[in-house]
Amino acid sequence: MTASRIDGKAAGVAVRERVAKGVRAFEQRAGRPPGLATVLVGEDPASAVYVRSKNRATAEAGMASFAHNLPDTTSESELLQLVADLNADKRVDGILVQLPLPSHIDEKKVIATIEPSKDVDGFHAMNAGRLATGLDALVPCTPLGCLYLLKAELGDLSGLDAVVIGRSNIVGKPMAQLLLGENATVTIAHSRTRNLEEVVSRADIVVAAVGRPEMVRGHWIKPGATVIDVGINRLPTDDGKGRLVGDVAFDEAVEFARAITPVPGGVGPMTIAMLMRNTLVAAHRRAGLADPENL
Amino acid sequence: MTASRIDGKAAGVAVRERVAKGVRAFEQRAGRPPGLATVLVGEDPASAVYVRSKNRATAEAGMASFAHNLPDTTSESELLQLVADLNADKRVDGILVQLPLPSHIDEKKVIATIEPSKDVDGFHAMNAGRLATGLDALVPCTPLGCLYLLKAELGDLSGLDAVVIGRSNIVGKPMAQLLLGENATVTIAHSRTRNLEEVVSRADIVVAAVGRPEMVRGHWIKPGATVIDVGINRLPTDDGKGRLVGDVAFDEAVEFARAITPVPGGVGPMTIAMLMRNTLVAAHRRAGLADPENL
Ligand SMILES: NC(=O)c1ccc[n+]([C@@H]2O[C@H](COP(=O)([O-])OP(=O)(O)OC[C@H]3O[C@@H](n4cnc5c(N)ncnc54)[C@H](OP(=O)(O)O)[C@@H]3O)[C@@H](O)[C@H]2O)c1
Ligand SMILES: NC(=O)c1ccc[n+]([C@@H]2O[C@H](COP(=O)([O-])OP(=O)(O)OC[C@H]3O[C@@H](n4cnc5c(N)ncnc54)[C@H](OP(=O)(O)O)[C@@H]3O)[C@@H](O)[C@H]2O)c1
Repeated sequence: MTASRIDGKAAGVAVRERVAKGVRAFEQRAGRPPGLATVLVGEDPASAVYVRSKNRATAEAGMASFAHNLPDTTSESELLQLVADLNADKRVDGILVQLPLPSHIDEKKVIATIEPSKDVDGFHAMNAGRLATGLDALVPCTPLGCLYLLKAELGDLSGLDAVVIGRSNIVGKPMAQLLLGENATVTIAHSRTRNLEEVVSRADIVVAAVGRPEMVRGHWIKPGATVIDVGINRLPTDDGKGRLVGDVAFDEAVEFARAITPVPGGVGPMTIAMLMRNTLVAAHRRAGLADPENL
Repeated sequence: MTASRIDGKAAGVAVRERVAKGVRAFEQRAGRPPGLATVLVGEDPASAVYVRSKNRATAEAGMASFAHNLPDTTSESELLQLVADLNADKRVDGILVQLPLPSHIDEKKVIATIEPSKDVDGFHAMNAGRLATGLDALVPCTPLGCLYLLKAELGDLSGLDAVVIGRSNIVGKPMAQLLLGENATVTIAHSRTRNLEEVVSRADIVVAAVGRPEMVRGHWIKPGATVIDVGINRLPTDDGKGRLVGDVAFDEAVEFARAITPVPGGVGPMTIAMLMRNTLVAAHRRAGLADPENL
């Protein structure tokens, strides 16, 4: 068996096109476009690249983009004041504070200050709790993108055995909640898990969100399982450019899986697409409109 | 092998004694006792029994008890006003609105109105989210009691395979979060799970919170596993009094398990003990004091 490759790039483009349509419809009804504010503190080059591509995607979707680039000398109270201003700004439906923040700023405090209805990253405890208890939530973008790919591949997930490797607040835990919400039987594994190969080998769905290059070996995968590889790891190469690999040994796993996301080109592009989706959803809820459909 | 019976009654008494000590210490420092307000709407006899025993336990622990018994004609807005008053009342550290509420009242709205720092049932989305993301939370009493019994029996749960059967917001889901927080590898099963016997048979820890009399059979249990039976089901008897049984076939399971909670006398008494604990903890946090130890 050779697995089909799940094309996250194409899926991401399709979502962003539907969001762009939804943006035009929202603007007609609300008299203004949805707006996303990004906040970047400091000069971390990777963070700067991420934020620029988020701002670009926002503009491409026809939304208002408010980019705040602050020096790394910004104090915590200055940042909290900016967040408070954005909370109060009626043009802003989504607020994204790019992490990590400089070490003199308490990330938890900043996240807790974002108005939950504008928390398009879904990191606020109120959104985590709304997700956990089955209320309308803004859900972290990466697991939302993984779920999108899984449902596009498998349809109904009900009764499937799913394993999530990793339990971060950003990926693993919300991923488990989403799979549970789709009626999968969900196992959450992590660094203390004793028999990871055995746990993985039982699963119809494997989501790997670990950050360890090619840790999940191909022969761990149950034949016919669907594999979502969230990991993004850069391996050194002779030419000094490095090579991106996931948490799953792709070349091995294609021999066992039914379908698998490549790295790059799998989960990655879905994250930004879901950020656009979340911003559009937040705009609707804040305007008292029903959630847009087919996203 | 015959399993040892986990004595939840004795454990509950021990917790309540430690809470009573903590109450005296708190009163000396804060100049007032911790206070718990209970709200009962209507005449449901089972609910009335529960609330009375909560009020009694509150008084026995030396805490201030504020009992509000409202007729079932109470409107939603009257109830929300009472909750708002209790939120503002400085003597009140914990607010418990007994569920279920009459059908003309929206339970979700009532729960969402309780100030999270006084939400000693741990049902508010903010507390569910704080639990999910690893922040200080008020955690639902029943799963907290289950975790207490498990740690008393097993010590460190790290790396153990745990299965939670049931995914309610009140028991199953927070139980899974707590076990994950103790570094167990956690599987959440429910009515859509396809191979429940197989899932259960792999587990070192089984928590059953289903509400189906003796559904979990003895031979499902891995020899040496620890079993926590949350279920409370009343079976009819000839004398009309009925007989309480759990979700686990106790007489069978004792032949396989290392330790198991009986029904009654297992998890049940821990729920009230943990309500007392949560109220004491809420009082400390609200007074700006460090959490009491050894609870
Ligand atoms: N595609 C995207 O858009 C996107 C977005 C976010 C993240 N990512 C990537 O996804 C990966 C995970 O990100 P994250 O933020 O969730 O990382 P994280 O916060 O570092 O969490 C990693 C998780 O993996 C677990 N883990 C570590 N070693 C393990 C082992 N040997 N066996 C089993 N589990 C192990 C850890 O367990 P403990 O909890 O026990 O430590 C932890 O729960 C990273 O490669 C990251 O770059 C990609
Ligand atoms: N000891 C105490 O103090 C205490 C406290 C609270 C509750 N309880 C007792 O604990 C039990 C559960 O309470 P709850 O409030 O969590 O109940 P609940 O809200 O009714 O949830 C029951 C859960 O069991 C699952 N389930 C139902 N049938 C199943 C089956 N055949 N196989 C596997 N899972 C199945 C359901 O799955 P779906 O989600 O797929 O429907 C649901 O998640 C009840 O007996 C209750 O009386 C005791």
